[in-house]
Amino acid sequence: MSVSKGISTKPPSGMRDFLADDVVRRRHVLSVVQRVYESFGFVPLETPTIENLSTLLGKYGPEGDQLLYRLLHRRDKLKRALEGDEVTELDLASEGLRYDLTVPLARVVANYKDLPAFYKRYQIQPVWRADRPAKGRFREFYQCDVDITGTQSLVADAEVCAAIAGVLRELGFEEFEILTNHRELLRALVLDAGIAADDEATALIALDKLDKVGVDGVRQELADKGVTAAQADALLQSLERMREPGALAALAEGEGRGAAGAKELLELFAHAEQTPAGAHLTFDPTLARGLSYYTGPIFEIQVDGLAGSMGGGGRYDNLIGMFQKQPVPAVGFSLGLERVLLVMTEREMFPALGIGPELLLCRMAEVSPSVALGVASRLRAAGLRVEVYADEAQMKKQLQYANQIGVSHVGILGPQEVADGTLALKHLGTGEQAAHPVGDVPAKVRA
Amino acid sequence: MSVSKGISTKPPSGMRDFLADDVVRRRHVLSVVQRVYESFGFVPLETPTIENLSTLLGKYGPEGDQLLYRLLHRRDKLKRALEGDEVTELDLASEGLRYDLTVPLARVVANYKDLPAFYKRYQIQPVWRADRPAKGRFREFYQCDVDITGTQSLVADAEVCAAIAGVLRELGFEEFEILTNHRELLRALVLDAGIAADDEATALIALDKLDKVGVDGVRQELADKGVTAAQADALLQSLERMREPGALAALAEGEGRGAAGAKELLELFAHAEQTPAGAHLTFDPTLARGLSYYTGPIFEIQVDGLAGSMGGGGRYDNLIGMFQKQPVPAVGFSLGLERVLLVMTEREMFPALGIGPELLLCRMAEVSPSVALGVASRLRAAGLRVEVYADEAQMKKQLQYANQIGVSHVGILGPQEVADGTLALKHLGTGEQAAHPVGDVPAKVRA
Repeated sequence: MSVSKGISTKPPSGMRDFLADDVVRRRHVLSVVQRVYESFGFVPLETPTIENLSTLLGKYGPEGDQLLYRLLHRRDKLKRALEGDEVTELDLASEGLRYDLTVPLARVVANYKDLPAFYKRYQIQPVWRADRPAKGRFREFYQCDVDITGTQSLVADAEVCAAIAGVLRELGFEEFEILTNHRELLRALVLDAGIAADDEATALIALDKLDKVGVDGVRQELADKGVTAAQADALLQSLERMREPGALAALAEGEGRGAAGAKELLELFAHAEQTPAGAHLTFDPTLARGLSYYTGPIFEIQVDGLAGSMGGGGRYDNLIGMFQKQPVPAVGFSLGLERVLLVMTEREMFPALGIGPELLLCRMAEVSPSVALGVASRLRAAGLRVEVYADEAQMKKQLQYANQIGVSHVGILGPQEVADGTLALKHLGTGEQAAHPVGDVPAKVRA
Repeated sequence: MSVSKGISTKPPSGMRDFLADDVVRRRHVLSVVQRVYESFGFVPLETPTIENLSTLLGKYGPEGDQLLYRLLHRRDKLKRALEGDEVTELDLASEGLRYDLTVPLARVVANYKDLPAFYKRYQIQPVWRADRPAKGRFREFYQCDVDITGTQSLVADAEVCAAIAGVLRELGFEEFEILTNHRELLRALVLDAGIAADDEATALIALDKLDKVGVDGVRQELADKGVTAAQADALLQSLERMREPGALAALAEGEGRGAAGAKELLELFAHAEQTPAGAHLTFDPTLARGLSYYTGPIFEIQVDGLAGSMGGGGRYDNLIGMFQKQPVPAVGFSLGLERVLLVMTEREMFPALGIGPELLLCRMAEVSPSVALGVASRLRAAGLRVEVYADEAQMKKQLQYANQIGVSHVGILGPQEVADGTLALKHLGTGEQAAHPVGDVPAKVRA
């Protein structure tokens, strides 16, 4: 065993330790997410931390490839790899860490042929990205995804929105918007502005930064990409016009390029009306979403006071089939656990979350550990969380420790209590102390 | 988006996908582990998947170092590393994946100065080892650890055994043994056999293989390591003698080398007598445990019919302090989730675990999706798990799908039901069908 004194004991950059209070807060949120997702009929999936790079590479764009954590070859394989000239990272690794939950879903859908025709799966797992760490940005973070594969019906789009809205409402969020747009509608506006079809992706990436860099910033970025000022103006103006009341309905009723996308959005809003998402879906014609794979409605959760979004999603009908012969339509929504926790912590939205012992069992020197452990076993069997003070120590020291760990009750075992089959129960808040039969103690503590 | 048709869609070697049934079985076990551990006053800890190699290297022996997953440097750092002569794996990586839960605990204890004097933490997380995959051996697997740091009291040793026994009994295991031995007692027998103190570790490693290679195998391995046949015989005979009734008590009462260790074992057995571990602790003088860091009692769970153990642990008073100035005594026990699941699956020890939708909501073509989604929202708000059939389809096809996903009930919405505020509820097992007010449906389904 090598001893490592003097080296850093902090977690690596971008990583976090979660002590008890953190764990229970995370667990509280995840249990709500899980319960609500399951109420929608979603079933859980867990995929391995490690995936083959052949699965991961090329799925997240060149920037994503750079952010992938790759696992170094070992032993002979590493030795052989290092023998070549011009060794690159492709020679040194063939596995990497899960980067998101969507590509693993695509792999799973291709691999297990007996999944239901409509595979409604949820997945709550960490992902890893070697991003530059920043405030609120981590290299290991949890995503909570719901996806429905196998149908182009907008019922599915409404369902994923309803599930997300259901989670947020159940967690105590009241004021939030699910900003909604449609990729086909956006594309129509881009083309109508005279921007070439080839530049559509570029234009959307520029537009996606609107909330960060403002109109002038987007104008500048479009100019940098070769979009003329007149085209940029036309696009930005048509987006503004789309915000006017009735504009979406008018577009849907017309014969223009954007009609089909607009119709789908109106249909989606109608579907969702009586679901938890109904009051929260908001048409935002400037919402672009960076990822290129979306093909239909797109979503992003906006909460007042939070820069950036708490999650997003959309329809992506050409992605899930990438590992198999036939295309598989799909729609999904991903909730970012870390952002949810950030806002809930700031706003003190957590209920009281029981953690740690409810009672510290102390014993006088005359009482043997075996008797104390026997009493503890009875209390635990009745559901009470009990810590037994392990050392032999003065009662004063044991009570100090009780205060240190913040336990509400102390149970004291002396020879008299042992003889009587009782426990002297002390409430540390009020200082009250009284002996009770051991069997009565759990109810007394919880009263 | 690169399309990857024709590449393997299986998880990487040694890794597994967990579909819904797997996830709920794993979750069932983990929820019991968590509840029982918490009843003992243990609090949760989660540490990052990625640790600095400076934390991990040298802690698991040379073989362990070889099994560590290391994360390849990126970009400039990789470029610089590859420029040197004689590039080794140490140049190419400075981070790796969590290999166990004990070294991270040691790091955490050193890093957070306001932990309680007796830090009772449990940790349920996966670990990664690049071991040769085999039946029942995986490269990503969960450990469920409890440890108590900060005390040398055998009360703590009894507590971790009681917690593990409590978990196993709660899961439905009745016949299991917690084989128990003591490192000091073993050491005494090794020395008494005339084996040099320097060869103690070697002798223990040989002894650890007794259940795999038998007495002759151990004798051979000891001979290979330079232990004479006379010494080997002396050791093996004294171990056998220790199995005789009263041998442990006699040793404890004597003045020999092993007296202190024997006394501690008797004390531990007495402490645990009235706990869930009481009936399961079994003295096994040949139990050695491979890891060199144990200093006192050692434990291993033995279940009939399972080759190998379902978990193990012991006292290790010199390990937790390795990142700080002062030593920190500790005792811990680790339960291996994968082994527990293996046995429980073979023995069909799982209760019925509710997963997936309880009701599939089908609608006739005349009923709009928004009405169906509204009904689904009401049912879900009442706690029912409901899937809405997403596509427009003939009722026959919808019912076929219900059978495919194995749902117990179907709710059918036609124009009449919508007008009446009812739902036609069909039990797929009995074929019975009757209309009920929507509000009554959850109770009917669960009846």
